[in-house]
Amino acid sequence: MADKTAKQPKKRLLRALAGETLDRPPWWLMRQAGRYLPEYRELREKAGDFITLCLTPELAAEVTMQPVRRFGMDAAILFSDILLVPRALGQSLSYEDDGPRLEAISEAADLRRLAARAAGIDLAPVGEAARCVRKALPDSTVLIGFAGAPWTVAAYMIEGGGSRDFQDAKSWMFRDPAGFASLIERIADATLDFLAIQIEGGVEVVQLFDSWAGILPPEGFVDWVIAPTRRLVAELKRRFPLIPIIGFPRGAGLMYERYAAETGVDAVSLDTSVPPIIAKATLQSRLPVQGNLDPVLLRLGGAAMREAVERLCEAFGTGPYIFNLGHGVLRDTPPEHVMELARVLSAPVA
Amino acid sequence: MADKTAKQPKKRLLRALAGETLDRPPWWLMRQAGRYLPEYRELREKAGDFITLCLTPELAAEVTMQPVRRFGMDAAILFSDILLVPRALGQSLSYEDDGPRLEAISEAADLRRLAARAAGIDLAPVGEAARCVRKALPDSTVLIGFAGAPWTVAAYMIEGGGSRDFQDAKSWMFRDPAGFASLIERIADATLDFLAIQIEGGVEVVQLFDSWAGILPPEGFVDWVIAPTRRLVAELKRRFPLIPIIGFPRGAGLMYERYAAETGVDAVSLDTSVPPIIAKATLQSRLPVQGNLDPVLLRLGGAAMREAVERLCEAFGTGPYIFNLGHGVLRDTPPEHVMELARVLSAPVA
Repeated sequence: MADKTAKQPKKRLLRALAGETLDRPPWWLMRQAGRYLPEYRELREKAGDFITLCLTPELAAEVTMQPVRRFGMDAAILFSDILLVPRALGQSLSYEDDGPRLEAISEAADLRRLAARAAGIDLAPVGEAARCVRKALPDSTVLIGFAGAPWTVAAYMIEGGGSRDFQDAKSWMFRDPAGFASLIERIADATLDFLAIQIEGGVEVVQLFDSWAGILPPEGFVDWVIAPTRRLVAELKRRFPLIPIIGFPRGAGLMYERYAAETGVDAVSLDTSVPPIIAKATLQSRLPVQGNLDPVLLRLGGAAMREAVERLCEAFGTGPYIFNLGHGVLRDTPPEHVMELARVLSAPVA
Repeated sequence: MADKTAKQPKKRLLRALAGETLDRPPWWLMRQAGRYLPEYRELREKAGDFITLCLTPELAAEVTMQPVRRFGMDAAILFSDILLVPRALGQSLSYEDDGPRLEAISEAADLRRLAARAAGIDLAPVGEAARCVRKALPDSTVLIGFAGAPWTVAAYMIEGGGSRDFQDAKSWMFRDPAGFASLIERIADATLDFLAIQIEGGVEVVQLFDSWAGILPPEGFVDWVIAPTRRLVAELKRRFPLIPIIGFPRGAGLMYERYAAETGVDAVSLDTSVPPIIAKATLQSRLPVQGNLDPVLLRLGGAAMREAVERLCEAFGTGPYIFNLGHGVLRDTPPEHVMELARVLSAPVA
């Protein structure tokens, strides 16, 4: 896909990722495909299981395309899930109404139950879905792939699902750093496979979601967010030198700067709490930034949203910038508010 | 109590709060009285209701004393709850197994159902409890009082209890800043009453818990964390100039520095995510700091805990510093680990 990318230097999102300052920022939204869209809910109803939806190429491709058709974002993000990696490693996965359930692992010995690489369960449909989307996407629209970063995936694997503060994951990390390192390495290898399949399928950019980076103490952040991300980025760069990587260490706070400086990511995605004035000076001076409208404002819509969007574009508009939320679209967000956002972002610059 | 404080300049915690660098840091633990102690669970069993426990002076005093008797911390923190303020404003409050329940409010009109000041429900027992504790405490031990900061209390009042991301509270804040300001002001007034009762009862230091500061976007942090805290601190300073105030804007991340610089608090408490190397340069250079061992390490105990404690003491030991956790004691923490911590902290400096 490197050639294809090289032949299309005009895609706005790729220009921003290459460090260019554009007159209006390219945009997409984390979780832009999903439950807030009636056409998604309808399709989900038919498909039944969430995993079936992710692993049936035509369905995953259709869901990926839905928001782009409605709103014309500058990027589609492949419909998939970060927990397909533990599943590919052989960990049982299901989705209940209140979130994912995994058969929790709790010590290094449990690694024996996992496969050595993602080969355990076939992820080929994810690559196939990427191929379908690339065929259907307008020429100007970028296809983004993604994976969870190793710490965040490990946290889910240990807790067996979501958690308020991931105490068990942190306990293992503190108690048995060597065993925990084996788990992180196993995840990183599988993540590389997962991303390679997406990139070979046509994904042009990847984002690493480290959704639980913010709950780690500083040493933990250095050892289990920065270090594994740096290794993963280096290996991706070796194999796919032309694919830009966006890192999203949600909640990194005072560690954002080290993350940006030390992991090798091409751009950093900012959560809602990051002050633009600080991010401009310490992050955007170094690399492109993405973010960080509060999703509650998108759900709310109206003047409050429009003004916040304009403030963000003003703050970040003088450097390489991709407009996005600071976290995923909330499920009760009215689609009309996303349309309103699209209008604000496409309005001529004052 | 100003006189009493002035006559006892030797209490180690007050010396640290006055900016002195001590050879070993004074220490206490957030949520040091509570469910991890068998004697607490026994007393709670007898008292039945959590609110009864808070509002019966002898019982609240006994619970406050329990950890100090066992572990000899440099401070006791009055056993109480931040939600006594909404209750005093007339909002119904109960405690279920999974946390507090309040009759949620959702718009400015609901303020009419609340009292104008905390006078609505009598908080006198809280002052009485402080008096009982002061009589029982060793001369060297400080009594700390506390309240929730207005934003955090508002967040609970609007959600009707705990929440993952307090979306309703943020929605109101974005949608109706004027109505939200009235709510914040009402809470701030009641908080002042709540703290005045504690200080008049003998509390020597107060801590403001802004547990949900970290979920706000930067403008929200400025308007609803920094501004109300600054007004509250100014009014406290006017009425009780000798009472030091510790601020704990949990999750403030990149906003910690502005919080410390702009609110007028005497010391700042750091959550687990704050890197000592940054806090030393940007915060401790300005005011005393408190924190920030991960409570998961206290639950774990052993070498991992001891080494982390020593790293913290080394990092912060060259300036005014109070040892504490970065968040409250976890309920399944073995009391022996707190004893181990007490030994590490009282060991002669190497």
